[in-house]
Parts: sequence; structure tokens; C-alpha cells
Amino acid sequence: MERLTIVKVGGKVVEEKESLDLLLDQFAQIRGKRILVHGGGSLATSLAEKLGIETQLVDGRRITDAATLEIVTMVYAGLVNKTIVAGLQARGCNSIGLTGADLNVIRAVKRPVTTVDYGFVGDIMEVNTSELRLLLNEEVVPVMAPITHDTKGQLLNTNADTIAADLAIELSNYYTVNLFYCFEKKGVLLHPDDENSVIPELSYDRFKELQTEGIIKEGMIPKLDNGFSAMKNGVSQVLITNPNLISMARGTRLSLKD
Amino acid sequence: MERLTIVKVGGKVVEEKESLDLLLDQFAQIRGKRILVHGGGSLATSLAEKLGIETQLVDGRRITDAATLEIVTMVYAGLVNKTIVAGLQARGCNSIGLTGADLNVIRAVKRPVTTVDYGFVGDIMEVNTSELRLLLNEEVVPVMAPITHDTKGQLLNTNADTIAADLAIELSNYYTVNLFYCFEKKGVLLHPDDENSVIPELSYDRFKELQTEGIIKEGMIPKLDNGFSAMKNGVSQVLITNPNLISMARGTRLSLKD
Repeated sequence: MERLTIVKVGGKVVEEKESLDLLLDQFAQIRGKRILVHGGGSLATSLAEKLGIETQLVDGRRITDAATLEIVTMVYAGLVNKTIVAGLQARGCNSIGLTGADLNVIRAVKRPVTTVDYGFVGDIMEVNTSELRLLLNEEVVPVMAPITHDTKGQLLNTNADTIAADLAIELSNYYTVNLFYCFEKKGVLLHPDDENSVIPELSYDRFKELQTEGIIKEGMIPKLDNGFSAMKNGVSQVLITNPNLISMARGTRLSLKD
Repeated sequence: MERLTIVKVGGKVVEEKESLDLLLDQFAQIRGKRILVHGGGSLATSLAEKLGIETQLVDGRRITDAATLEIVTMVYAGLVNKTIVAGLQARGCNSIGLTGADLNVIRAVKRPVTTVDYGFVGDIMEVNTSELRLLLNEEVVPVMAPITHDTKGQLLNTNADTIAADLAIELSNYYTVNLFYCFEKKGVLLHPDDENSVIPELSYDRFKELQTEGIIKEGMIPKLDNGFSAMKNGVSQVLITNPNLISMARGTRLSLKD
């Protein structure tokens, strides 16, 4: 099968023009079919602040009331997505910005209220790639914002790491998929303060050990859960890395071996 | 040639949920291939106000400095565009939201500074429809936001009426194009205060007479200039109308006869 590279990028990388430009330079050099999935970093939080809307996070996940949904739709699907699309066009990549509502690529449901009411947060139910593959066949580069819909007209704020993993899993039916999670660090660190302590290969058992030991924590846990879910469901390669290391395919490689 | 209907909607119609829902109900019932082009009405102005950014208009056109460009990108390409896309998906139209940067559909240049510096406002140079037609052939409904790019990474705020006309002209090489300009009124009014004084058919000469007499004025002038430009350049039919009248194709029909 033909290779497809899916790069997920978030955090500080998308917040600042300089780091975003560097990421786009690197991404534009990837050969073959590509998809870029982005988050919005703290840009939504800072717009909310300016508008006097309080941001509430539970376990790093944003509580999304109606006003916050408008903000993330504006920031993620508008500002960040279109800045990336224009930046890729300038680098010769014919890109197209999408949310899960566009082409009905991702159908989600509003997360059921249990102990926490996350508001307009979506849990992914279905990924539809027929028109997406048509675009990939034309060498178009889809750029996915972390917004989905419920097919009944409701937009939903959805975790970008999960979107990247679920897209990768569905598309592994058609392509040999490499999934790169890009962030500020060079990979998963054994010693959080030592940038050079990158774990080159990480098995699921070792991940769970390091989680128990408190070495892997916070946002890295759902990211790795998503990555291992992708590995277990047909994705060929998952790498946790830095924009600078994409071309060398270096970082932390997830492994299903014990 | 196959028929293609392009509906441009703006002003109050997109600002309020109720009127937007009505428009989407009507739009969803149009048979055959369709494109929706939207403006953002005063939603950008009200976000700018909340953020303490001053809105400057010259002849009804927005002066777009860097902060204002971020606002219109968020509001038009984010909030309004994705609300429409989700609303159309809920009505069974498989839609896709686009700016001129996506798929490089519209290349513009920053408007040259003469007596007025409009800032990041784009004048359209080229319309590329190859991938757009691929989507239309899959019965996908493109939804265009009034943002374009210069292919060098710069997004540009661009008049939605002009986008609709230029898209219609380019696509008239491939389809029999009907262009509907939808707004609050039932058409071009002979007596501005009388909603029932709609001019059913308007020639270019009569338009210029009514403009001289001050009966047709303000925003209606560029809209009609765009409409007549479309008629003169291959578009089959241009109608100035109201969302309620789309299905009946009633309103003011532009005519090239004297």
C-alpha cells in the first residue's frame, strides 16, 4: 500500500509564528501523501481571557460551554487552520483546511455527563474518508482542526490527538500510515528535565510502568494512549517527536513488542 | 451544460440563527449542483468592539489592519463558515467550508494603496476550480468564506459579492450558472421604504439611471456592478432576492437588454 504520513502538531508549536513556520518548512518536505492535524495551544485561552470568558480545565481538558465553543471554532477552525493553509500554499503544498463537519469527515457525539459535564465536547463515533481519499489522490494536503459535529448541526470541541489517531486507524485500511505526534520536546523523556533523555523505543508495558512511577504524566498519558491505540489498530508506525526531527524520523517510537 | 446555482448570502441573514436556519432550509431544497458564498454581516464588527478594536469603514468597505484580519478570519472562516457547514450537514447536504486559500481557489493581491489604504484587503486575480469541480461532481456543496490569499502566505479580506461573481464567471465555462444574491429585501426596490416596489427586471442602463437619481445607492451599487459583470461574462442568470424567494426564483432579475 502507498504510504500516508499524518502529523499532529499542537501546543507551543502552533502558537508562535516562528515555530509554526519551522514546522511548515519541515512538513512541506515530507514526500508522498500527507495530512496535518493541529490543536490550538493556548490561543483559545488567551482570546477567552480578552473576552472575559473564564476557561475551566478538568484533567487538562477544556470545559466547553456555548461561548467557549464559539471561541474554539473561531480560533481553531478559523485563525489557526487558515494561517496553516495559507502557509502551506506558500510552500507549494496545495492544502485544504477541514473540521470534522466538512465532508462529514468525523461524526462525534456530545460527551455524556458523568461526574463532569464537559459541555460541547465530542467523542468520535465515525470517520468517513471517501472524499478525503479523493483529495489525497489529487495530491491535496488536508489540514484538520480539532472541531467535529454530531450531524444534527452541533459543532463539538474534540481532542486533536484523538482525531489524529482515529484518522490514522481508519486510513490504515487504504494506506501504510505513519503517525507523528509533534510537540516541543524531542520525544518521551525518561528524566523530565533532561532533553537528551529521550526514550528511543517505548513498549506499552514500559509506558504503563513509567506511568505508575509518575515519570510519564499529565498530557503525555492520553497522547500515548492514543498512539498505542493507533498501533494496535493497524497504524504502521507511531513516533512522538519534535518538528525538527520529522525528516530524520527520530524521537520516541512506540512498539507493540514487550 | 449542467446547471450550477451559486447563492451569495450576507448581512442580517447570516447574523441571526433564525434567519440563517430559514436560508439553509431554502438552500438545501435547491436541486442540482450548488455553491453557497457568505459574508459575515456585523458579527466581525461586534467581536472587534468586544476586543476594543476600532472598526473603520470607507464607502462601506472595512479597513483591515492586522488585528482586524485576525478577527475576520476567525469570524468568517471559523464561526460563520463552520456553523453553516454543520447546518447543511444536518439538512443532508454534504458540504465543505472553504476560503480562497483552501485548494488555492482564489488568488488575490493586497489592494494597492491610493487615496485610501485598505490594509489586508484582497483584489481577486485568479479563480482555480479544478479541485472544486471534482468536489461538485461528488455532489459536495462548497461553502465559501470571504477570505482569500496571495499564495505567499498572506490571508486577505475579500468582498463576498465579488467572490460570488468571479466564481460564477469562471464556472460558467463548465456549467450553466444561476447566481442569486440574497439579502433582507425582496429585490431592488424602486421606493426604498416600500417592500412591494421590487423592480422585476433591471437593465444596465436603467440601473445607471436609478443610480444617478439616487434611488439605487450605497451597498447595492457594488452588488449590482458585480451582478452585471457576471451577466456580461457568461453567467446565465443573476437574481437579487430574499432567502424566501429562492425556490420561486423571484426578485430582481438583471438583464443585458436595453
